[in-house]
Amino acid sequence: MSKPLLLVGESTSNQNLFYKTRFLAGDPFFYLESSEASTLVVSAMELGRAQRESIVEDVRSFNDLGYVELYRRYGDSRRAIAQLSVRLLQEYGASAVRVEPGLPVQFADVLRTEDCDLEIDTHMVVEERRHKSDEEIAAIAAAQAATERALEHAVALIEASEERAGYLHFNGIPLTSERIRAEIEIALLRENLVSEMESTVACGRAAADPHARGSGPLVAHEAIVMDIFPRSRQSRYFADITRTVVKGTPAPAVRAMYESVMRAHESALSLVRAGANGADIHHAVLDEFRSSGYDGRPERPSMPHGTGHGIGLDIHEAPRLGEIELTLVEGDVITIEPGLYHPDIGGVRVEDAVLVTQDGYRNLTSISKRLELG
Amino acid sequence: MSKPLLLVGESTSNQNLFYKTRFLAGDPFFYLESSEASTLVVSAMELGRAQRESIVEDVRSFNDLGYVELYRRYGDSRRAIAQLSVRLLQEYGASAVRVEPGLPVQFADVLRTEDCDLEIDTHMVVEERRHKSDEEIAAIAAAQAATERALEHAVALIEASEERAGYLHFNGIPLTSERIRAEIEIALLRENLVSEMESTVACGRAAADPHARGSGPLVAHEAIVMDIFPRSRQSRYFADITRTVVKGTPAPAVRAMYESVMRAHESALSLVRAGANGADIHHAVLDEFRSSGYDGRPERPSMPHGTGHGIGLDIHEAPRLGEIELTLVEGDVITIEPGLYHPDIGGVRVEDAVLVTQDGYRNLTSISKRLELG
Repeated sequence: MSKPLLLVGESTSNQNLFYKTRFLAGDPFFYLESSEASTLVVSAMELGRAQRESIVEDVRSFNDLGYVELYRRYGDSRRAIAQLSVRLLQEYGASAVRVEPGLPVQFADVLRTEDCDLEIDTHMVVEERRHKSDEEIAAIAAAQAATERALEHAVALIEASEERAGYLHFNGIPLTSERIRAEIEIALLRENLVSEMESTVACGRAAADPHARGSGPLVAHEAIVMDIFPRSRQSRYFADITRTVVKGTPAPAVRAMYESVMRAHESALSLVRAGANGADIHHAVLDEFRSSGYDGRPERPSMPHGTGHGIGLDIHEAPRLGEIELTLVEGDVITIEPGLYHPDIGGVRVEDAVLVTQDGYRNLTSISKRLELG
Repeated sequence: MSKPLLLVGESTSNQNLFYKTRFLAGDPFFYLESSEASTLVVSAMELGRAQRESIVEDVRSFNDLGYVELYRRYGDSRRAIAQLSVRLLQEYGASAVRVEPGLPVQFADVLRTEDCDLEIDTHMVVEERRHKSDEEIAAIAAAQAATERALEHAVALIEASEERAGYLHFNGIPLTSERIRAEIEIALLRENLVSEMESTVACGRAAADPHARGSGPLVAHEAIVMDIFPRSRQSRYFADITRTVVKGTPAPAVRAMYESVMRAHESALSLVRAGANGADIHHAVLDEFRSSGYDGRPERPSMPHGTGHGIGLDIHEAPRLGEIELTLVEGDVITIEPGLYHPDIGGVRVEDAVLVTQDGYRNLTSISKRLELG
């Protein structure tokens, strides 16, 4: 018998646990899976909900395995739960178990003290999750479509705004990063998506840091980077889109960066297919930048991040498209998001999410890529 | 020298890490603190933001400590980061370190392989976080006030609704759990709060499970339990409030449960002060229920959960008010949330969040507790 797999934690933050159980809970529970059986073990209060909502057939409560007595003995809930997993492993007849690198050390120490051998499997579930099922693809596509509607609403607001003393105004009120962000969030919420981290709505030089969220008034003729990556509360899957717009006339430097980013985007997409090497895709982006003069000299705009990443139950999951060699597989859903940044100019980034197929890709993103808004 | 403290992970989910650094990031980083020094170590891309946003003075990047070479050697980012922490511990002159029970086992194994002794401290930071500072109290109070405004909006909608064929309608459209939940979320978002887990809006028998979120049409004359526990995106602190309302005339059984819950609530609150025993507060609730005839017989309504819990950067944090003996401290912010549930009747719960003071408490919750809406 191969070693069973053990997952432990809260499925609100441990996506492997949610992936395997489809049971969402903010309090700790665990899941054991061998080639013959799988068992979900939750607190007594969660038992009914777990039986209704989880895809696991064998659902038990901590109390079924003797939690109350163990909790009395140790006075530590986490330690008692770890002991319960030892009991279940004995029932499975297993003296070794595969665990995640993120298994809590306290839990690991209990298992080892009970002579259970741990194999830390850095690829566990990670590779499995790359092969998105039709249902998962539909969930991501739905989240992506809802995110596009929210982004379209934001673009429409910016497009309908007027310049006054250099700043964008809508209905006489200054448009700010915060206002656009709130409008995006409300539009997302109406479709039951939520941004766990704030969306980026960053204007001008503030967008030169690819991680800056942006704040304050939006300026005419400056690039506004909007990066929206909410989670669907219904499916738990993420969407991820970035668009860069200018209300007014972009500076020549911004326009040149945008055109190069668009060429890099197309160049990267043209290489996407099952079997392609992620590093080749990243290098295609860097090659385009180099040939446009963004060649790494410190005074020139550059891209301090990778070309893309997998999305799914995590906003950043395998694979990562960067310097590391890796092979794309059918069912990967990845972002392609080249960007150029310079402290004196600002930032430009364009991001789609695409499904990797046998022959190429299916773009899950259809919103237009317009830099200039009338 | 006492052992330094090491925190590792993403501060979006590891609240101890956010508490110590005030740096929010969804990618892993680590923090080391001794009695003489503290250091925050983040990825190169996060360095600028960490220097701006964190309260830690000594901020370094993975690259400063030699990440690139370690990553090349191991081909595993997490393992390379763990090796960086070994280097920093050597710089600190420490051969032992205090860690959280949740430290990833892979990280722990790297430290142990490098002859670093781990002390797993189950109380680490947990107790420190109980003593809320004035700034933290203000953050929770602000989140609580915003949550009350959202709840008031929901109550107003239910109050203004009309009964048609037994169901609540507003402007001719049926009111559902989903609709009320969306209205609450939008009201929260306008104040930059977000529900990481869906709010509860559960009507009638659906509310008999204290963890059920609720769905479908709201029914006249039935109890509707609304439990809202959003996080402020600005401060990262949580609020938590529950109210139970009936549009119309509650059944006598519901009214009796509500009155007992209200007495239990007052009885519990009257015991809250620094030095009080949490188990005594919980038993005061159970005593009230017993004296009202909710005495544990299976056919009677009962309370399958504790009386309350700490709130702060986590929605559930220390202390927990239940069967376990513990002493409240000044600065604890706790919920008091007695409830009664029965599968044939439904549920009733009333929850305030209060600050524990030397002499008693300050209720951070002021929204009225009305069962019957006209």
